[in-house]
Amino acid sequence: MARKIILDSDPGHDDAVAILLAAGNPNIDLLAVTTVGGNQSLDKVTYNARAVLEKAHRTDIPVYAGCDRPLVRPQEVAASIHGQTGLDGVELPVPTRPLEDMHAVNFIVKTIMENEPGTITLVPTGPLTNIAMAVRMEPRIVERVKEVVLMGGGYHVGNWSAVAEFNIKVDPEAAHVVFNEPWPVTMVGLDLTHQALCTPAVQKRIEGVGTDLAQFVSGLMDFFRKTYQDNQDFVDPPVHDPCTVAYLIDPTVMTTRRCPVDVELTGTLTTGMTVADLRGPEPSAEQCHTQVAVKLDFDKFWDLVTDAIERIG
Amino acid sequence: MARKIILDSDPGHDDAVAILLAAGNPNIDLLAVTTVGGNQSLDKVTYNARAVLEKAHRTDIPVYAGCDRPLVRPQEVAASIHGQTGLDGVELPVPTRPLEDMHAVNFIVKTIMENEPGTITLVPTGPLTNIAMAVRMEPRIVERVKEVVLMGGGYHVGNWSAVAEFNIKVDPEAAHVVFNEPWPVTMVGLDLTHQALCTPAVQKRIEGVGTDLAQFVSGLMDFFRKTYQDNQDFVDPPVHDPCTVAYLIDPTVMTTRRCPVDVELTGTLTTGMTVADLRGPEPSAEQCHTQVAVKLDFDKFWDLVTDAIERIG
Amino acid sequence: MARKIILDSDPGHDDAVAILLAAGNPNIDLLAVTTVGGNQSLDKVTYNARAVLEKAHRTDIPVYAGCDRPLVRPQEVAASIHGQTGLDGVELPVPTRPLEDMHAVNFIVKTIMENEPGTITLVPTGPLTNIAMAVRMEPRIVERVKEVVLMGGGYHVGNWSAVAEFNIKVDPEAAHVVFNEPWPVTMVGLDLTHQALCTPAVQKRIEGVGTDLAQFVSGLMDFFRKTYQDNQDFVDPPVHDPCTVAYLIDPTVMTTRRCPVDVELTGTLTTGMTVADLRGPEPSAEQCHTQVAVKLDFDKFWDLVTDAIERIG
Amino acid sequence: MARKIILDSDPGHDDAVAILLAAGNPNIDLLAVTTVGGNQSLDKVTYNARAVLEKAHRTDIPVYAGCDRPLVRPQEVAASIHGQTGLDGVELPVPTRPLEDMHAVNFIVKTIMENEPGTITLVPTGPLTNIAMAVRMEPRIVERVKEVVLMGGGYHVGNWSAVAEFNIKVDPEAAHVVFNEPWPVTMVGLDLTHQALCTPAVQKRIEGVGTDLAQFVSGLMDFFRKTYQDNQDFVDPPVHDPCTVAYLIDPTVMTTRRCPVDVELTGTLTTGMTVADLRGPEPSAEQCHTQVAVKLDFDKFWDLVTDAIERIG
Repeated sequence: MARKIILDSDPGHDDAVAILLAAGNPNIDLLAVTTVGGNQSLDKVTYNARAVLEKAHRTDIPVYAGCDRPLVRPQEVAASIHGQTGLDGVELPVPTRPLEDMHAVNFIVKTIMENEPGTITLVPTGPLTNIAMAVRMEPRIVERVKEVVLMGGGYHVGNWSAVAEFNIKVDPEAAHVVFNEPWPVTMVGLDLTHQALCTPAVQKRIEGVGTDLAQFVSGLMDFFRKTYQDNQDFVDPPVHDPCTVAYLIDPTVMTTRRCPVDVELTGTLTTGMTVADLRGPEPSAEQCHTQVAVKLDFDKFWDLVTDAIERIG
Repeated sequence: MARKIILDSDPGHDDAVAILLAAGNPNIDLLAVTTVGGNQSLDKVTYNARAVLEKAHRTDIPVYAGCDRPLVRPQEVAASIHGQTGLDGVELPVPTRPLEDMHAVNFIVKTIMENEPGTITLVPTGPLTNIAMAVRMEPRIVERVKEVVLMGGGYHVGNWSAVAEFNIKVDPEAAHVVFNEPWPVTMVGLDLTHQALCTPAVQKRIEGVGTDLAQFVSGLMDFFRKTYQDNQDFVDPPVHDPCTVAYLIDPTVMTTRRCPVDVELTGTLTTGMTVADLRGPEPSAEQCHTQVAVKLDFDKFWDLVTDAIERIG
Repeated sequence: MARKIILDSDPGHDDAVAILLAAGNPNIDLLAVTTVGGNQSLDKVTYNARAVLEKAHRTDIPVYAGCDRPLVRPQEVAASIHGQTGLDGVELPVPTRPLEDMHAVNFIVKTIMENEPGTITLVPTGPLTNIAMAVRMEPRIVERVKEVVLMGGGYHVGNWSAVAEFNIKVDPEAAHVVFNEPWPVTMVGLDLTHQALCTPAVQKRIEGVGTDLAQFVSGLMDFFRKTYQDNQDFVDPPVHDPCTVAYLIDPTVMTTRRCPVDVELTGTLTTGMTVADLRGPEPSAEQCHTQVAVKLDFDKFWDLVTDAIERIG
Repeated sequence: MARKIILDSDPGHDDAVAILLAAGNPNIDLLAVTTVGGNQSLDKVTYNARAVLEKAHRTDIPVYAGCDRPLVRPQEVAASIHGQTGLDGVELPVPTRPLEDMHAVNFIVKTIMENEPGTITLVPTGPLTNIAMAVRMEPRIVERVKEVVLMGGGYHVGNWSAVAEFNIKVDPEAAHVVFNEPWPVTMVGLDLTHQALCTPAVQKRIEGVGTDLAQFVSGLMDFFRKTYQDNQDFVDPPVHDPCTVAYLIDPTVMTTRRCPVDVELTGTLTTGMTVADLRGPEPSAEQCHTQVAVKLDFDKFWDLVTDAIERIG
């Protein structure tokens, strides 16, 4: 049976690919895309989410807008990486399906409380504001969620500071809430996603699908490559967010290691760091509800992405 | 015309008096009591709020339960002051009106958005979790609220640490949100409320009203006096929360001073301190959206409280 | 018998008055002036200390230069208050006595270890860097010092931030060391020193002494008044530092209150605050090694200062 | 010509091996061992330093005792690793050479100021208290020191918390001073030293030297192995401190990477972490005065240690 997921995201070039992977793979039942201010302002990323679903011919999937800024801190966006629209570099279709009325946080709570316990997976690929808000609105969702598989953080790698990743650094308090609730959390951090590089060979293969959508994804990658070259000293762009969805389709796409993870809130140099304690032997699932992604199966990952683009047509 | 207020509270002995003052004074239109985990757990304070309204024969006023714990930190209650029930020392009536279904945060947002701008006043007398959540759910409430008059903090006085007050210290991140939004905020802190002592003379006067309710209030004060003597080195208990409502009924009940106020989040000794900058000349309302309460008109305050108890009958 | 003191200072207009008071009062045995980077750079304040002693005809008193910057943080000077030389506004005599070779920290340690226990009083009126360094070089000085009477901090007043005073804020780690060692510490903070205003009447009285030195002091006060008017919204300048020496000459010049005092090191808004816990009854000297200055006897204070200026001649 | 070094240490089992390597290798001119409270109390580690030099027949090398506790924080020792004496597990000779009178901090300052600029290398293998104190006593040592090669920290590894190493964590303020002065600093951290494992094969080889000293070292390693097994989940003990000396004898014993390094002082989870910014291309020596040790040449390292033990005889 397909995994029921809510994708909470802030598209964003790699978020767009995550939406496409979720929309195009038969093992994923994408209940909704919820949006959060992050890579760009809430208005922009919400429009982008709707436009990407339009592009994927999935107007059956609703979009709910959530929080427009972090729990406690002033908002910071990633225009240097995703441009002024959040999806610079491609032309977006005009979304035909209207935005839902309900607030994303209320939708998340309602969906989890109305579905059977253990059936809903949360897949946040932006700042964790909506998820933290949902937990505080309704603490009982913690024991009803199947698991949380999030893109963010890094146990040895940072990109928005020496040791912190963007999604966590811009709303560290929300991340602190999410990592400290006792649900199963898989952190797909930069340690993993910096392996998910869209090399020229990968991009050529995607283009080879030959559809308008494939060309759209290639356009996203062109822009993403350029900003990553200009701002982060990368040759090829790391396509972070779809790694989460890929893991839910096929857990063998990555190895993981169980370890305690917490979020630093008061460090002068380290605020927003996901502090993983990798000392000693690996704890069991009973001892530790958090795990971090370690090693990507590069070919398997890009197979899944390419396959989804093909299926969408 | 009566002031429309939402009283967001965690009864609590002094919260109970605040509810009675709001329920019994004709210049206050108490739209609802919303509750928040604080002095005791959410379940207990929500029951207490309903029971106090029952006691006041105001079953027309709805109660909405809100957040059960702080935004980011673990919960800490004030059992040493308010006892195991949150209202130890009196017998409570069984509430006949059921709790509302809607979450307090959604109620606050909905009420502010559906009423005319500038008509709703928020009166938080517990931790500021619900208010911060409402602001993050719907940022537009900030410009629609008339003002926020809160009990919490202190510019020179602490009670939960050397320099921090309970309501702010247990959820400093929520307080940080509330003080940093550009709405008018009046901080009725310990500097003011430690003047609102229920002396034996005051208590005798309340008892003199001669009603069952008056006896109920006196019972609350007996317990409150004892815990304040045992835990805070007071002779008479400071009845904090109704000072906010009194100020809305009659602003001359206290003097205020306009000054910047912010909340410390990272101090080792000072987290939860409301840091007021009292240097230099007093700024104007245009320059500064926050003010602090300074000097209480003791007689006028207790006149208002006694009057409300009389009116309720 | 005269009190043996080491005055550790960073002159500075009010430090200069402190030196004159110590140099001119027969109850004080000023063993040395040690200097520390603070109001201005170490070179400047060291020159100033020597020049002020020259002006006071006390070339028998040695000057030792100490640390040029705070323990941990970058240096910050108070040029807005004391000018580019640290003693702007007057002409200084050229000091005839050379600077001592020994480092101030080593002098402090040596003096305390070579004198009888309980005979040496430390009087820091600048950042506490030298004192903290001395304690770390030789921990045994703590039990040998008679007491520490310092100008710095404030329990309710700040000047270098909303809640922090200059001397403590520029080297909070050093202050943390000094307040946490178990020796007797009297904090003469802004709560007290903002009462030591050099009013026009006071200044006229000083001028009335009719000496060149009196004119020199009056010149210092003219400059000090102006910068305090321009930068701190004062009418008359508070002459902080001599309050410490006055207290050692005659403790009845001020009232004090015993209470725990610690220094905040990690606050976003409060770093450098001297956090005093004034809750509950006043502890005994056995329970608490720190006390804060509360109320100045204004007339007695200025009597002492004027008298010292007269005596110096 | 032999490198003139001051070894500032807190023996400690691996410190003892560092002393032996420095004492036994002809390319090192060990001017003195200075001591600092760290692995054990100052008295104990000072005795140990003297005893190890006695064992090495190097009573020509003086020992100076330094600071007994960290700059700002309370002392914390590593008795779980080094035992009650700091060198548990072996019998120490009684040192015949008395401890020097001068304080280690004064000795460090004096030595650097009296020698030619660029000739003295500081090799701290304990908390950085003495070095930070020396810099604050005499800032000019910074430009006169040849370089600082220290054992401490880690860019991806912690042992005294998830992300902090003992030497840095127990006195992070001192470490902050040392890393922020513009002298060349090589951080030989846990990333490197956890490669310097004393395997059974290594230990057998050391024993094969056949001297009393070789047996002494083997005894140290037996105890060290046991505490590392019991407390740190290691099979073989990492012999941290001599890696610094080995690098000075032969820089090819390790690879290094230049990168900015700073020390976190205010983190809830990360205080004492050495935050290295490894993003982007490696900076030049002109751009960056700090570098971190990366990869150890295991055989070359143990060759040097064994050779020193042999030479001492």
